[in-house]
Amino acid sequence: DFMNALDEVHPAFGVSEEELQQVIQNGIIHFDVVVDELLRSGELLVEQVRTSTRTPLVSVLLYGPPGVGKTALSASIAQASEFPFIKLISPDSMVGFSESQKVAAITKVFADSYKSPLSVIVVDNIERLIDWTPMGARFSNAVLQTLLVLFGRRPPKRPILEDIGFSETFDSELRMPPITTLRALEFVLREVELFKTSEERKQAIKSLEDAGFKFQIGIKKLLSMIEMARQEPDNVVQRLVGALMGLGM
Amino acid sequence: DFMNALDEVHPAFGVSEEELQQVIQNGIIHFDVVVDELLRSGELLVEQVRTSTRTPLVSVLLYGPPGVGKTALSASIAQASEFPFIKLISPDSMVGFSESQKVAAITKVFADSYKSPLSVIVVDNIERLIDWTPMGARFSNAVLQTLLVLFGRRPPKRPILEDIGFSETFDSELRMPPITTLRALEFVLREVELFKTSEERKQAIKSLEDAGFKFQIGIKKLLSMIEMARQEPDNVVQRLVGALMGLGM
Amino acid sequence: DFMNALDEVHPAFGVSEEELQQVIQNGIIHFDVVVDELLRSGELLVEQVRTSTRTPLVSVLLYGPPGVGKTALSASIAQASEFPFIKLISPDSMVGFSESQKVAAITKVFADSYKSPLSVIVVDNIERLIDWTPMGARFSNAVLQTLLVLFGRRPPKRPILEDIGFSETFDSELRMPPITTLRALEFVLREVELFKTSEERKQAIKSLEDAGFKFQIGIKKLLSMIEMARQEPDNVVQRLVGALMGLGM
Amino acid sequence: DFMNALDEVHPAFGVSEEELQQVIQNGIIHFDVVVDELLRSGELLVEQVRTSTRTPLVSVLLYGPPGVGKTALSASIAQASEFPFIKLISPDSMVGFSESQKVAAITKVFADSYKSPLSVIVVDNIERLIDWTPMGARFSNAVLQTLLVLFGRRPPKRPILEDIGFSETFDSELRMPPITTLRALEFVLREVELFKTSEERKQAIKSLEDAGFKFQIGIKKLLSMIEMARQEPDNVVQRLVGALMGLGM
Amino acid sequence: DFMNALDEVHPAFGVSEEELQQVIQNGIIHFDVVVDELLRSGELLVEQVRTSTRTPLVSVLLYGPPGVGKTALSASIAQASEFPFIKLISPDSMVGFSESQKVAAITKVFADSYKSPLSVIVVDNIERLIDWTPMGARFSNAVLQTLLVLFGRRPPKRPILEDIGFSETFDSELRMPPITTLRALEFVLREVELFKTSEERKQAIKSLEDAGFKFQIGIKKLLSMIEMARQEPDNVVQRLVGALMGLGM
Amino acid sequence: DFMNALDEVHPAFGVSEEELQQVIQNGIIHFDVVVDELLRSGELLVEQVRTSTRTPLVSVLLYGPPGVGKTALSASIAQASEFPFIKLISPDSMVGFSESQKVAAITKVFADSYKSPLSVIVVDNIERLIDWTPMGARFSNAVLQTLLVLFGRRPPKRPILEDIGFSETFDSELRMPPITTLRALEFVLREVELFKTSEERKQAIKSLEDAGFKFQIGIKKLLSMIEMARQEPDNVVQRLVGALMGLGM
Ligand SMILES: Nc1ncnc2c1ncn2[C@@H]1O[C@H](COP(=O)(O)OP(=O)(O)OP(=O)(O)O)[C@@H](O)[C@H]1O
Ligand SMILES: Nc1ncnc2c1ncn2[C@@H]1O[C@H](COP(=O)(O)OP(=O)(O)OP(=O)(O)O)[C@@H](O)[C@H]1O
Ligand SMILES: Nc1ncnc2c1ncn2[C@@H]1O[C@H](COP(=O)(O)OP(=O)(O)OP(=O)(O)O)[C@@H](O)[C@H]1O
Ligand SMILES: Nc1ncnc2c1ncn2[C@@H]1O[C@H](COP(=O)(O)OP(=O)(O)OP(=O)(O)O)[C@@H](O)[C@H]1O
Ligand SMILES: Nc1ncnc2c1ncn2[C@@H]1O[C@H](COP(=O)(O)OP(=O)(O)OP(=O)(O)O)[C@@H](O)[C@H]1O
Ligand SMILES: Nc1ncnc2c1ncn2[C@@H]1O[C@H](COP(=O)(O)OP(=O)(O)OP(=O)(O)O)[C@@H](O)[C@H]1O
Ligand SMILES: [Mg+2]
Ligand SMILES: [Mg+2]
Ligand SMILES: [Mg+2]
Ligand SMILES: [Mg+2]
Ligand SMILES: [Mg+2]
Ligand SMILES: [Mg+2]
Repeated sequence: DFMNALDEVHPAFGVSEEELQQVIQNGIIHFDVVVDELLRSGELLVEQVRTSTRTPLVSVLLYGPPGVGKTALSASIAQASEFPFIKLISPDSMVGFSESQKVAAITKVFADSYKSPLSVIVVDNIERLIDWTPMGARFSNAVLQTLLVLFGRRPPKRPILEDIGFSETFDSELRMPPITTLRALEFVLREVELFKTSEERKQAIKSLEDAGFKFQIGIKKLLSMIEMARQEPDNVVQRLVGALMGLGM
Repeated sequence: DFMNALDEVHPAFGVSEEELQQVIQNGIIHFDVVVDELLRSGELLVEQVRTSTRTPLVSVLLYGPPGVGKTALSASIAQASEFPFIKLISPDSMVGFSESQKVAAITKVFADSYKSPLSVIVVDNIERLIDWTPMGARFSNAVLQTLLVLFGRRPPKRPILEDIGFSETFDSELRMPPITTLRALEFVLREVELFKTSEERKQAIKSLEDAGFKFQIGIKKLLSMIEMARQEPDNVVQRLVGALMGLGM
Repeated sequence: DFMNALDEVHPAFGVSEEELQQVIQNGIIHFDVVVDELLRSGELLVEQVRTSTRTPLVSVLLYGPPGVGKTALSASIAQASEFPFIKLISPDSMVGFSESQKVAAITKVFADSYKSPLSVIVVDNIERLIDWTPMGARFSNAVLQTLLVLFGRRPPKRPILEDIGFSETFDSELRMPPITTLRALEFVLREVELFKTSEERKQAIKSLEDAGFKFQIGIKKLLSMIEMARQEPDNVVQRLVGALMGLGM
Repeated sequence: DFMNALDEVHPAFGVSEEELQQVIQNGIIHFDVVVDELLRSGELLVEQVRTSTRTPLVSVLLYGPPGVGKTALSASIAQASEFPFIKLISPDSMVGFSESQKVAAITKVFADSYKSPLSVIVVDNIERLIDWTPMGARFSNAVLQTLLVLFGRRPPKRPILEDIGFSETFDSELRMPPITTLRALEFVLREVELFKTSEERKQAIKSLEDAGFKFQIGIKKLLSMIEMARQEPDNVVQRLVGALMGLGM
Repeated sequence: DFMNALDEVHPAFGVSEEELQQVIQNGIIHFDVVVDELLRSGELLVEQVRTSTRTPLVSVLLYGPPGVGKTALSASIAQASEFPFIKLISPDSMVGFSESQKVAAITKVFADSYKSPLSVIVVDNIERLIDWTPMGARFSNAVLQTLLVLFGRRPPKRPILEDIGFSETFDSELRMPPITTLRALEFVLREVELFKTSEERKQAIKSLEDAGFKFQIGIKKLLSMIEMARQEPDNVVQRLVGALMGLGM
Repeated sequence: DFMNALDEVHPAFGVSEEELQQVIQNGIIHFDVVVDELLRSGELLVEQVRTSTRTPLVSVLLYGPPGVGKTALSASIAQASEFPFIKLISPDSMVGFSESQKVAAITKVFADSYKSPLSVIVVDNIERLIDWTPMGARFSNAVLQTLLVLFGRRPPKRPILEDIGFSETFDSELRMPPITTLRALEFVLREVELFKTSEERKQAIKSLEDAGFKFQIGIKKLLSMIEMARQEPDNVVQRLVGALMGLGM
């Protein structure tokens, strides 16, 4: 009976805390008001799933340039829902899978979710899930079609947070922008404690401001640059400013 | 013998009430006279199957933009026929099927239908059934060819209600339009009881009218927007008007 | 020995009366002199197979727009030959076949025919047999090549009546035109007894004539329109005229 | 040892008289001096294989429009060689073969030929052998490559007579033209005894001459037209002239 | 437990000294300051992996024209890290592998690396790994997608040194230029002791200088030319100058 | 141990004299100084493999129009090396092989060669090896990639002589030109003793010279023409001159 069935899929159930934790490894830095707005929108959508009788399935597209934090933010919203079923579907756990193994793995997560009263599924990095490559516009049509059907299906309640760049039919869409202001940049620098003193930090920002520096950078790349700069303690400001300037805008 | 054969396929027979019910989940709202006209046309075609000796097979194409209610309306007409065999062929029940499994599943529904004196088959979302994608114009030719042959075959009586966007040779074609008038919009708002008072509803319509608002929206997307607006009870009018305005026309 | 071999394939032999009958379901209406001419040409070709020693194989292409009656006419000519071996090769009996199963099925019909002193094979709807689709110009090359070789092979006597739209090398070609005159139209209407009185019929034709109506319609679509009009007994003239006018020429 | 090996392949050896005979069914009519010239060229090439030590392999391309008699002439030359190994490789005997079965069948014929001191292989209708179709330029590359390699290989002595339309690298090329003169036409008509009297024949030719008739027809199609005309004994001249005029030049 | 697991994969562990050695067969010649700079950059990246907690995975793209020394330099940096896990992934060890065997082999190296606290993986010659060919833009999408996912994954610490020409998303990029100055050329000539006396060498350089010689050559091709010139001891200068001049710029 | 390993592969070892001999069937005619120069270049490259420590692998591309003698010359150079391992990789010995069987066969030859201190591998007719066809630019990518990797690999010493038309990255390239002078032509004619007297030969050359004859012909085609002319002893001059003139330049 149903209870037994639940037991059977048990290992697939529950919240995959570890996986979610890993993609938010560096935390969420509130460098801009847009970060808070996105988190709030996510919260409302989760609420809609919990309460609306007409829309048990709500799909959301979270998009934006590479490295702006799509994966981390989606995972964050999912985690905050505290739903009994939260899962991350990501190409990382499917390396070396055949097309049909991927289809089966994805289908299984959705099938399992139907057994939970409330569930969130984060489908991350769809471009890699469907083996997309612009060379010859190749991709796995089988995986793509599976996702399209699953996104439109409406059995039990379940919001879907997606992080893709080319789909188009979602109930709602959220855009995650890159960092473009020195204020946000300074916020991040302070948060990660790159500089020993705040004078140093302000000086770095100042020199970028004086140079009339215009930029656009994802939080992911920014964090990576900061760690490289950290390697030469005597030279941090120069390394960081040089790397940022090298972005070429 | 034949009776035994019938017994064998028994589980496949009869009307799949549950499936049909699920796709009409939110009912049919008579927001425009076109809705009644379409339902009447469907009724006549069903009658033709019941009575004409020369045309035991009648195929109908029901088309229109995404989300205008094609699936729900087809299911509704099929259900009203009260034929002994009513089936929904939909990609939802074929997730993860291989090409040949899909062909077999579709062929089986048609084969089963030949054993019923009268039958309706709704072939829904053909784009997904044939794994269509505009990227590289890929699709399953095997499934497409199966459908083309089955649509043209004429064994026992059977109307086919299709919901596709690109086929061309049907006995008859019906077009389902999106919602474009404030009158139809108000009808829907009243029906789903989004606002607590009718003053609120009229005010919302008024403000759209004053803004010279022109729009085009499928009933499916409209219902989804309404549920999102419902999440913030203090702010319903503003949320709904904002979302509608955001459609950008 | 040979007699035994014949016994083995026995179920495949003989004339498949039922199949032929089914595709001529609505009979042959002699609505125009061209119908008689085509039937006469078919008769002559059948005669050539029976008597000529130099041309044991005669292939004929019967072509024309969709629905003009290609299938029914071919079956009619084949039936009239009264040859011991008459077969219809059609995609309807191969739904869900793999490419190699189709090739095998087609090859078998031809191989069986070689055991009969005289035979006719009607290869119907080649576009579907080869899984042709204009999207990406896809089709089964294996089936196409099989047909091309079989059409050109000349073992025992056997005429082939084909109904395709794109081949080119046949011994002879016959073109089946659509209906374009009010006289032919009236002939059909009388034959199928759509109207209760001949006054009604003449009136319908008159009103089309007065409107300067120009048209082009296959007999198949015409019969289908007639049956739809028949559904509303009080409104037959108007429904039929309306539908015909809707053809848009 | 070698003698044993010979025994093993014995059934594949020797001259396949029957097959050759079948493709020359209607004999060789010497309607033009070019026919004799082509036969003489073939004879010389056969002689070269027999005697030259430097060129044990001689490949010849025999090409021309459809139906000019390429197959029959190749078979004729091969037959006249009286070599111990004469084989016809033709798609007719490979209907329904998979790609690899075709490659194996072709390879086997060549392998067998190496065991004969002198051999001729006629590779007929290469377009069908390689499953060529202009739609999408599809063909079996495996079969094509097999042929290209085999044509260039030079183990024991062996001429190859080919009948293809698109290859290019042969030791020698012979072109087979269609019939274009009334003299050749009359020759054929006399040979096949279409008319009861030579007056009738001359009259037919006369009427074509008077009409300034220009034409171009393969011997194969001509023989087919003649047989059709023969069906209406009272009307032979008119039918034949009509059919010829219908060629449209 | 973990120790046992380590034992199991033991043969795959450790540093593959031999392989690394083989690709640096001809040593690293410091013909230009850029060589030292690249080695220093590599050293810093290795340091980042060792110490940073936020960036356990650092990926680097080392690119440049054919034969500039990408493979040798990558191997050199990897070797200098003295990490417990150093592996070279190269098409040389996968000749004749099927697509899925390649995916499995690559995946295994990364999986093994996760068991080491610190590791370097050099992915060499990605164009060959993915079977890239410009004719028809063909390549193995399965291998490409595997690499893209693995490059972005961040389990334990591990820098990746890549040597490809068309990827784009790496934490850092290093460009290896070809040799373009006579100074660098002379440096190499001295190092490999092509000439018996330094007078000879200077004379060769002089004659190139006088001719206004402009060039661009990878170290790999240059070493190959030098060895050819070495074959004719009496003619070394002339052979080398001739070959260099033949580069045509 | 190594000696045992050698024993195992023994049948694959050694020089495949017979195969080499077969492709040089008609000997090497020194009709032009370029023939000697090419042989000398080959000799030097062989020497480099024998002696250089830095370049154990030397790859050479021998290219030119069809039939100029690429295969025979490569085989000749290989044979002259007298290395313990000399092998010809040619499509002739792989007729009917699947893609993976070809890859395996090629890989095996290279693997065997690594067991010999010195080896030459002639990779002949790469276009056929990779199943190249200009129609649709089809070819076996698996075989192509295998060759590209093997050509670049550098285990033990081994020169590769290639005869292809479209590759690009070899250590060295040699171009084999067609015959274009009457002097070279006469040289060949004398060598093969086509004419009974040298007067006849001179007369033939004279008549070509007088006609202002310009030509370009591969040695392979020339030898074939000569043998055809030899078939009619009374007519040799005329046949040969006619055939040459027919080349059309
Ligand atoms: N406000 C923030 N939003 C999102 N991520 C943040 C934020 N602040 C810090 N981070 C950190 O930045 C990194 C964002 O990387 P993430 O993988 O989520 O980006 P992405 O947009 O998914 O990249 P990609 O386009 O490569 O998939 C994470 O390590 C995360 O912990
Ligand atoms: N008059 C109506 N006609 C159709 N559907 C209606 C109507 N009124 C309300 N609905 C509801 O609107 C929704 C229509 O969604 P449906 O899936 O049928 O649209 P669709 O056109 O098939 O969408 P898609 O293009 O995505 O397949 C259903 O939930 C249905 O209950
Ligand atoms: N003169 C006629 N010739 C042919 N069919 C006729 C004629 N008169 C009546 N019919 C009827 O018209 C219908 C013709 O349909 P048929 O399937 O043969 O057309 P078709 O050209 O093969 O169509 P399609 O292009 O779809 O294959 C049949 O039901 C047949 O009984
Ligand atoms: N002089 C002739 N040369 C060739 N065939 C002749 C000649 N005279 C009569 N025939 C007859 O004409 C027919 C020629 O048909 P054949 O199949 O050889 O033509 P083909 O060029 O191979 O046709 P296709 O292009 O269809 O392959 C044969 O039946 C042959 O017996
Ligand atoms: N400074 C240097 N940097 C790199 N390689 C050097 C240097 N000096 C000498 N070499 C030698 O030059 C050769 C460089 O060849 P390598 O295979 O690394 O080039 P590559 O750029 O990887 O070539 P390809 O584009 O073909 O992959 C090696 O033999 C190496 O030992
Ligand atoms: N100087 C020469 N060089 C090469 N071959 C010669 C020479 N003199 C005579 N020959 C003969 O000419 C023939 C050359 O044919 P070969 O197959 O080598 O040409 P190829 O260029 O490889 O042709 P293909 O382009 O078809 O592969 C051989 O029979 C060879 O014995
Ligand atoms: Mg991401
Ligand atoms: Mg729908
Ligand atoms: Mg038909
Ligand atoms: Mg032929
Ligand atoms: Mg390299
Ligand atoms: Mg060659």
